[in-house]
Amino acid sequence: MAKQKKQPRPKAITPKGFRDYFGAEVDERKHMLDQIAAVYHRYGFDALESSAVETVEALGKFLPDVDRPNEGVFAWQEFDEKDNGDWMALRYDLTAPLARVYAQHRNDLPTPYRRYAMGPVWRNEKPGPGRFRQFYQCDADTVGTASMAADAEICAMLADTLETVGIPRGDYLVRVNNRKVMNGVLEVMGVGEGPEREAVLRTIDKFDKVGEAGVRELLGKGRLDASGAYIDGVGLSDEQAEPVIAFLTSKGATADETLTNLRAAVGESAVGAEGIAELEQIADLLAAQGYGPDRIEIDPSVVRGLGYYTGPVFEAELTFEIQDEKGRPRQFGSVAGGGRYDDLVKRFTGQAVPATGISIGVDRLLAALRAKGRMGGKAVGPVVVTVMDKSRLADYQSMVTELRQAGIRAEVYLGNPKNFGNQLKYADKRNSPVAVIAGSDEFDAGKVQIKDLVLGAKIAESATLEEWKERPSQFECDRADMVAKVREIIEASDD
Amino acid sequence: MAKQKKQPRPKAITPKGFRDYFGAEVDERKHMLDQIAAVYHRYGFDALESSAVETVEALGKFLPDVDRPNEGVFAWQEFDEKDNGDWMALRYDLTAPLARVYAQHRNDLPTPYRRYAMGPVWRNEKPGPGRFRQFYQCDADTVGTASMAADAEICAMLADTLETVGIPRGDYLVRVNNRKVMNGVLEVMGVGEGPEREAVLRTIDKFDKVGEAGVRELLGKGRLDASGAYIDGVGLSDEQAEPVIAFLTSKGATADETLTNLRAAVGESAVGAEGIAELEQIADLLAAQGYGPDRIEIDPSVVRGLGYYTGPVFEAELTFEIQDEKGRPRQFGSVAGGGRYDDLVKRFTGQAVPATGISIGVDRLLAALRAKGRMGGKAVGPVVVTVMDKSRLADYQSMVTELRQAGIRAEVYLGNPKNFGNQLKYADKRNSPVAVIAGSDEFDAGKVQIKDLVLGAKIAESATLEEWKERPSQFECDRADMVAKVREIIEASDD
Repeated sequence: MAKQKKQPRPKAITPKGFRDYFGAEVDERKHMLDQIAAVYHRYGFDALESSAVETVEALGKFLPDVDRPNEGVFAWQEFDEKDNGDWMALRYDLTAPLARVYAQHRNDLPTPYRRYAMGPVWRNEKPGPGRFRQFYQCDADTVGTASMAADAEICAMLADTLETVGIPRGDYLVRVNNRKVMNGVLEVMGVGEGPEREAVLRTIDKFDKVGEAGVRELLGKGRLDASGAYIDGVGLSDEQAEPVIAFLTSKGATADETLTNLRAAVGESAVGAEGIAELEQIADLLAAQGYGPDRIEIDPSVVRGLGYYTGPVFEAELTFEIQDEKGRPRQFGSVAGGGRYDDLVKRFTGQAVPATGISIGVDRLLAALRAKGRMGGKAVGPVVVTVMDKSRLADYQSMVTELRQAGIRAEVYLGNPKNFGNQLKYADKRNSPVAVIAGSDEFDAGKVQIKDLVLGAKIAESATLEEWKERPSQFECDRADMVAKVREIIEASDD
Repeated sequence: MAKQKKQPRPKAITPKGFRDYFGAEVDERKHMLDQIAAVYHRYGFDALESSAVETVEALGKFLPDVDRPNEGVFAWQEFDEKDNGDWMALRYDLTAPLARVYAQHRNDLPTPYRRYAMGPVWRNEKPGPGRFRQFYQCDADTVGTASMAADAEICAMLADTLETVGIPRGDYLVRVNNRKVMNGVLEVMGVGEGPEREAVLRTIDKFDKVGEAGVRELLGKGRLDASGAYIDGVGLSDEQAEPVIAFLTSKGATADETLTNLRAAVGESAVGAEGIAELEQIADLLAAQGYGPDRIEIDPSVVRGLGYYTGPVFEAELTFEIQDEKGRPRQFGSVAGGGRYDDLVKRFTGQAVPATGISIGVDRLLAALRAKGRMGGKAVGPVVVTVMDKSRLADYQSMVTELRQAGIRAEVYLGNPKNFGNQLKYADKRNSPVAVIAGSDEFDAGKVQIKDLVLGAKIAESATLEEWKERPSQFECDRADMVAKVREIIEASDD
């Protein structure tokens, strides 16, 4: 009889572009989300958790024009005997689900509806280094009011949030612009909807990189870029390009100065004037609450990619330098963005519902704090009660129960106890502050050995016992004093 | 020219079997998850967050034997130009991903590895009332040790967790059984692998419902059930069925008594004796730590559906009664379950890796606390600063800023301020404790009006002002005293 072919073993790997998060990584993100939620909550925003799965129809942006609508999203067809099931997809952001939720539940929700949401979103994109297909977003939006006070509030809340999670004032800037002002500029230039407008917008978005002279070239005949390649220009005359340049360079020393410059840039455009009036309202409200240009400023170079913004747009940038992969200094850049989008709910209801909001890229913000050394310390592990005598397991369990009841994180070593060295290696891998040791001698005498692993590590580092004379790295104490002695060491090493 | 056909509007609905969670629902679940995580952490378990998406190959249980492997899971094929992409799926539990994570990262992880995980899982099942296709699980597992101390620890931790989230001792019971004992019973009966064994196991699982006499009938010729339908029996003789009955009814008044009865039930079976020895070890360890049968007991009727358990199995049951949809009393039942599964990691590595763990059904546990009235109070909303004079928005914003800085949740009304009644209706919908009111008279005099909405609601309820004489429902105070006066009302209504 032929030998039965063996099934190959499955590969133990995450799908491409996905990753796992362990211990301190999970704790640190959770801590940050808790801090952000507390600020949002204090501002009157209510939590919303929508399902991870939406109908492709409701998500909208990626409507299927082919059999498999998986461009940009992870999508699948519901099983149906006639192969006629609905297409479903994982949400790619938290804004599209909010629009669906508001349209669905608007009669039960307060108006305006302030809501926050935090959780993973999924993008079916090509993964790259540090670029994952599942990542966290943390959004706050106000639906149902056209008042600029809602936009000002979002900006103030964003500034408060950044400071709360540990970005000090001076290390960030919330920049505010208005789509209507840009539309006013394009109107003055005579650039209507279409490819020319797209090309101009793409050029404006490059201002940060190529500067005023670069934008001039790109709006005109074109430009030789750093790599030596020639980039075709939009083909505008110098005169036509002038309003764009005036707009991009309109940032003054104060909000008033910036607004005056913008007025000149939009000329007679009604929509431009409307945008400037909105920026002025936001600036006035923020100034009255004490949010000066050290925290929030009007900056006409903010564009924000998403097509659905209809008025104010926001961006939070971290202004400190970090080192890139090659050790060169660079600005950390954007960690949050948002703006006003008055048409998303209308898709469902036919009625315009004004809305504005912000999305924080939590993983980027965590990376920033780690880059600044403000996070990413090794988490302190549990106290490890070692096992010298297997028949005493119940006694060791009683020790950890006592420690836990005193609020101390603790565990019994549950691996093979034969090799005591492995138990201490385990405690080291767990980053344990203390090991508790008791064999039959100790049990008979009513004692335990306490091994101070924090001190042990320090001694190993400085390779001398001299300076630690006062504090023994292992000592015996009465069993009854175990909890108190362990606590002393943990508290001493917290300093 | 023919009128262009309009695109129909998308429907604003969640996909079938999914739902949204609002405000207090999200907060209450988060609070419970935080409480559970704190207990798990104190026991030395580390957080793990694996990706929501896994390869179908790694998930294993639902390997594709057809083109579309979506039986039970939500799955899709990665796009690939040759239509040859990997199948991916949403995780259906947190255990299968743990096995994959441990196999993938085992060289970097401590052994034993204690980990906890909490988050949504997805099941592609027919939705029903109260039965959703996305729900939360909250797991703790110890991988890499065969010691029964790991199983005992999981049971003790489960009892601690239930008490921590608000289920008092006496209202729950952790029941422990062992697959090996059941296998021993089947061995004694001469029932091998196959359909007969499956039928016997299914019958054992019905013991809770049909009792001893019912099981006797179902193991024999069959049984007329309550609806009048005849259920075919397994077809065993009375003599053959006896060991099952002895096993199911072996629960004694104490663990010792139960173990003695079980010994009789498994007779000469070696695997049965092994299972009993394991139960005995668990019972001894728990007794030494003070976990008596009022919290954790050996109960031979616990089966647990999943086929992958290889030793001890656990179930946490809430023992109090609730009312079903028709107002009849019934026991609340199971809220958590788990057991030892020694073969899941082996699928990947070829080497046996013992593991044991527990999964808490968080949504069911929340439902239990709500049924007992221990949760589900309406969340307190923010203080609402109303808008009497639109030109004073900056002043209203300053008021909420002051309140927030004092730690009080507060917001400005941002709807259309024309109809003041709507502002109070909004505050009511938000469950606000206080409304702050200031028009030009108040601004001129440096005053604000404070409206106590909690008291207002109480007066409306009892329809008399008499008993509330001491506490006016609306009063004027100096603008400088606003924060203190608001705080007084919030603190008084907390009582």
